[in-house]
Amino acid sequence: MEHVNIALLGMGRIGKIHFKNITQRFPRASVVAVADPQLDEAQFASQYGQGARFFRNPEEAIGHPQVNAVLICTPTSSHADLVEKAATAGKAIFCEKPLDLSLERTAALVDRTGETGVKLMLGFNRRFDPDFMQARQSVAAGKIGEVHIVKITSRDPGLPPIDYIKNSGGLFMDMAIHDFDMARYISGKKVVEVYAKGLVRHDPAVADAGDIDTALTTLVFEDGTCAVIDNSRKAVYGYDQRLEVFGSNGMIQVENNQHHRNIISDAAGIHHALPLDFFMDRYEKSYLKEIELFIDALLHNKEMPVSGSDGLQATLIATAAKLSMQKGEPVKLAGIEAGILESI
Amino acid sequence: MEHVNIALLGMGRIGKIHFKNITQRFPRASVVAVADPQLDEAQFASQYGQGARFFRNPEEAIGHPQVNAVLICTPTSSHADLVEKAATAGKAIFCEKPLDLSLERTAALVDRTGETGVKLMLGFNRRFDPDFMQARQSVAAGKIGEVHIVKITSRDPGLPPIDYIKNSGGLFMDMAIHDFDMARYISGKKVVEVYAKGLVRHDPAVADAGDIDTALTTLVFEDGTCAVIDNSRKAVYGYDQRLEVFGSNGMIQVENNQHHRNIISDAAGIHHALPLDFFMDRYEKSYLKEIELFIDALLHNKEMPVSGSDGLQATLIATAAKLSMQKGEPVKLAGIEAGILESI
Amino acid sequence: MEHVNIALLGMGRIGKIHFKNITQRFPRASVVAVADPQLDEAQFASQYGQGARFFRNPEEAIGHPQVNAVLICTPTSSHADLVEKAATAGKAIFCEKPLDLSLERTAALVDRTGETGVKLMLGFNRRFDPDFMQARQSVAAGKIGEVHIVKITSRDPGLPPIDYIKNSGGLFMDMAIHDFDMARYISGKKVVEVYAKGLVRHDPAVADAGDIDTALTTLVFEDGTCAVIDNSRKAVYGYDQRLEVFGSNGMIQVENNQHHRNIISDAAGIHHALPLDFFMDRYEKSYLKEIELFIDALLHNKEMPVSGSDGLQATLIATAAKLSMQKGEPVKLAGIEAGILESI
Amino acid sequence: MEHVNIALLGMGRIGKIHFKNITQRFPRASVVAVADPQLDEAQFASQYGQGARFFRNPEEAIGHPQVNAVLICTPTSSHADLVEKAATAGKAIFCEKPLDLSLERTAALVDRTGETGVKLMLGFNRRFDPDFMQARQSVAAGKIGEVHIVKITSRDPGLPPIDYIKNSGGLFMDMAIHDFDMARYISGKKVVEVYAKGLVRHDPAVADAGDIDTALTTLVFEDGTCAVIDNSRKAVYGYDQRLEVFGSNGMIQVENNQHHRNIISDAAGIHHALPLDFFMDRYEKSYLKEIELFIDALLHNKEMPVSGSDGLQATLIATAAKLSMQKGEPVKLAGIEAGILESI
Repeated sequence: MEHVNIALLGMGRIGKIHFKNITQRFPRASVVAVADPQLDEAQFASQYGQGARFFRNPEEAIGHPQVNAVLICTPTSSHADLVEKAATAGKAIFCEKPLDLSLERTAALVDRTGETGVKLMLGFNRRFDPDFMQARQSVAAGKIGEVHIVKITSRDPGLPPIDYIKNSGGLFMDMAIHDFDMARYISGKKVVEVYAKGLVRHDPAVADAGDIDTALTTLVFEDGTCAVIDNSRKAVYGYDQRLEVFGSNGMIQVENNQHHRNIISDAAGIHHALPLDFFMDRYEKSYLKEIELFIDALLHNKEMPVSGSDGLQATLIATAAKLSMQKGEPVKLAGIEAGILESI
Repeated sequence: MEHVNIALLGMGRIGKIHFKNITQRFPRASVVAVADPQLDEAQFASQYGQGARFFRNPEEAIGHPQVNAVLICTPTSSHADLVEKAATAGKAIFCEKPLDLSLERTAALVDRTGETGVKLMLGFNRRFDPDFMQARQSVAAGKIGEVHIVKITSRDPGLPPIDYIKNSGGLFMDMAIHDFDMARYISGKKVVEVYAKGLVRHDPAVADAGDIDTALTTLVFEDGTCAVIDNSRKAVYGYDQRLEVFGSNGMIQVENNQHHRNIISDAAGIHHALPLDFFMDRYEKSYLKEIELFIDALLHNKEMPVSGSDGLQATLIATAAKLSMQKGEPVKLAGIEAGILESI
Repeated sequence: MEHVNIALLGMGRIGKIHFKNITQRFPRASVVAVADPQLDEAQFASQYGQGARFFRNPEEAIGHPQVNAVLICTPTSSHADLVEKAATAGKAIFCEKPLDLSLERTAALVDRTGETGVKLMLGFNRRFDPDFMQARQSVAAGKIGEVHIVKITSRDPGLPPIDYIKNSGGLFMDMAIHDFDMARYISGKKVVEVYAKGLVRHDPAVADAGDIDTALTTLVFEDGTCAVIDNSRKAVYGYDQRLEVFGSNGMIQVENNQHHRNIISDAAGIHHALPLDFFMDRYEKSYLKEIELFIDALLHNKEMPVSGSDGLQATLIATAAKLSMQKGEPVKLAGIEAGILESI
Repeated sequence: MEHVNIALLGMGRIGKIHFKNITQRFPRASVVAVADPQLDEAQFASQYGQGARFFRNPEEAIGHPQVNAVLICTPTSSHADLVEKAATAGKAIFCEKPLDLSLERTAALVDRTGETGVKLMLGFNRRFDPDFMQARQSVAAGKIGEVHIVKITSRDPGLPPIDYIKNSGGLFMDMAIHDFDMARYISGKKVVEVYAKGLVRHDPAVADAGDIDTALTTLVFEDGTCAVIDNSRKAVYGYDQRLEVFGSNGMIQVENNQHHRNIISDAAGIHHALPLDFFMDRYEKSYLKEIELFIDALLHNKEMPVSGSDGLQATLIATAAKLSMQKGEPVKLAGIEAGILESI
């Protein structure tokens, strides 16, 4: 590809970020088409200028002849259909996670994109956070030897609205899925078994919505080593995103990003700033980096840094976690995979 | 009790520390008798002076008429017999952990001391580390609200000799048992279920000895919240003893004790000192504090800060952890307890 | 002003940053003219597009009728002339520090812009670093009470080329001048006396060029409290920019920005990342913020956040520091000011 | 010397610490005599046992035939006389700082002990703090190359009683003298010039007592490099004792000792513990170490780790600091030394 001509589907929070990043930063990529059913052409033009054709219908944007890549930033429920349409149209695809809440559909999509040969990248943006990338590079370079234990702390700064929760697919599929992907990414290992505990501690309305707000998940890798992930929907001190990898020759810890680097000492204590509490601030650089690498992979015909298969694995783990929680026992991924293969 | 007259059994590493601490620090306590089969009277006198009667046979020390409290610092295999003898003799007991490697024997000892009414304290010294005590006080004072997640990191600085491992009762009973007790102590909650994974990563000789060197254990408390403990026999950067308690209103983290507070910045990085790597340095203050509180409880007829029941619970969790690892599934403590009640 | 139409003079490192920031971030500001004698119109258009008129001669850009504000990013030696021309043309001015290396000329420029009534802002960008702004806000809000001691650490990551040093005005005027301004900014106090020591430790060529590479400067404020600033041209561990303010009710410390938040523990120590070592990375946000505030002051007719008088004071301190170093004794600013008033 | 038989003069706070340390820790040293005019024999025996002869008169303790070393822990005003008496009696001397408030008398004492050939150690205990020793070793080992800048922060946790201040010799002689010695110790360099600023910020009563409570002192070493020391009598957050050494190959920072290693994160911030705020806690280990090295130097006929000459240099700097503050200009030590030589 000489130049990446993008159809951006969905101008919500994430869509806007991608729009701004692409138009400002990448000379060899352009947003040529935008689709969003909640805007009209005039509104779009007044807010974003005349650089891109506007459509209400995403299919038309996908079908725009100039377009050679599609960015799917629409609500989760529409991801699968749009991926299929883009794949059928032979356009490269960047899709926000997850491909779909259903494991079967996810597996089918990965198969489908494989058949069409279109490139597909999943937006597991945390892989592209500079601190986590640095940690992965150190692990891959052998700086701590063989990985023995992975510990991931992932806590949101506050409960999302209950309506959001109802349509989210649940904590494992909506929130912990990032951490499941991170465990695979940081260790470079395949997950074979999941044991998850989940409960409601913050608000009974979460239980009424059929979800949990606190979880502890153990992932067992194929070599028998483990990762443990703890999740909470509400850390009063902010968005808590830390990582620890322990190995035969040392340990890597990734600390939080704080609001500032001022330390105040007074009669009550020594006080540091809280972590950044909004995910778009915390992961500002990762949203830019993932698009940079997507564009780069298209321009230079490289492998996508997060594949459809990565998305499928994360969804599989999330499915297993929910099942494990419900059954109260560890669940092997092999069993679930077999089940899917039969069902599709 | 007006004055605590102690028979100290076993003058190994820990016995020596207790001897020194008691003779130097507590005006209302004395070591009046010492027993150690590996010393003779002359050796003892030359090293420790004439302040205490020396015996080779611990029973004679227990029976010494002046003695009203017994400190058991002998090898684990002798703990149970000595506890029974001291209890029968009506002497107060401080016993290094564990009471016994067998759960049944442990339960019987707790019953037995209960019947005799003698005071019994278990040497879970980490509860008396100033940093962990501070954390417990903060939790108990409600500084972080309700406890949702407990995370304990407990890694030794190096593999013990294989001979030690063979007689240790295994990683869960020998090493993680401290962490199991810590999880109960710091949360103030009862453990009801255990899920443990264990494996050998450092030396195949550990496997040959029937043990593991790396473990990850999930404890489920009665309210459904969890603790997770990760253990390794070998952290190349030293003795890693950290704690994190996450609650509805905040988080407490306990950091390692480092060798010094010098930070060196050079062209390669910013370098801090390693953690203290010998347990007797790391827990120097906790060995003193536990004896202070034992003596204090005797002088003022208070409840012991670590009871026989605490010892039994920790042993129960260790037993369950081993069982869980072997069976590959979570184990409920209730089932094991029932089994014990039948067997004794 | 309804819209800020900027003539940007000088497209070196800083000019490029301002160009990018203004064109991407501020809807109510535009770069309408650019001047740089080292480019030609075709080069400019190919690199920066057609949005702005290009001139080789800065006077023509200043004189462009649409222009209502001038950004001076040219070499220091041209600042004074360009400021005078812009002032005479009645255009608002943003000038990179310093106005001039000569104290007399600086004083005259401040007078001149005062007479013309044009707004003038000096580019002491560090005032707009988020961490230093946060510290200033805390001081101003009284969080540490009355300020008693200010300590500024300011060390470059490496010696600049000797040719640069020769034309720099010397360490005090070129490098420490930022810190002199910071001491005034952070404390909100007037400096009345300076005592400076300076020497060459890194390279004798610095001495040959008539400069120093290491300095320690004490500033005395009007209330008798002090600031101390230590400078070095070469910190092997990177760009060291820290601050400490001690007051009657506490202390504020501003720590360095590090390359990443990974901590590696291995057998040799616990290793953190080095500080950002390039000033344009370290102060990336401050370059954006200063322009934002310049534009904002023009749009809403506010006072400039750094005035010509601030520039004069910093230059005065730098002049006094050099004099103090040469004479080996403290120098009062009042004496120098008197001298200037006579000379102009 | 085969065994160090000590006469301990003064059983105040420091005397008690030395008594306890010597009696508990050093098999080759004993306190054989104690003198304190505020105790009587019965009181002493009831509190400290029968191990040492008690005297009200320190001269009798010095003269006790068994005594071969004298520890002077009496009020400052008596130091000089007791040092002279011990020197005349040919007994080794450990004297708490300072030898005397008068520079002339100090110089004379150093001469006098030199003539008698008795070993004399000054109690600059901070040199023996493990963290500062570690820093000194790193500097001496060349870990940061050549030393360019030394920064010492030394702030007390609160104003001492005004009566104490009146007899203290003033902030420079009483408090900063430790830091002056530290600057010499850590750098291994000779001080040649002093520039000091001092003022009262906490309590006008300090001014009425003829003293200051806040100071900033620049020391110039013989090679032209500098140290800067900032002092305050009152840091509301506790006892602040930090150090930074910047050199051609890096930097060493010594951080404070904190009360504990708990970090609490809540909605208001991330809170660490305050520094230890009582000097006897903060420097607990240094009081032990200095006596260990004093005894060791006597047993093995080594050079004393802090000599009378070190004491004289620190007093000289303190004298120069006061003079500099009064005159408002830098003061060269050479001038003062010449003055003393004439006067004695």
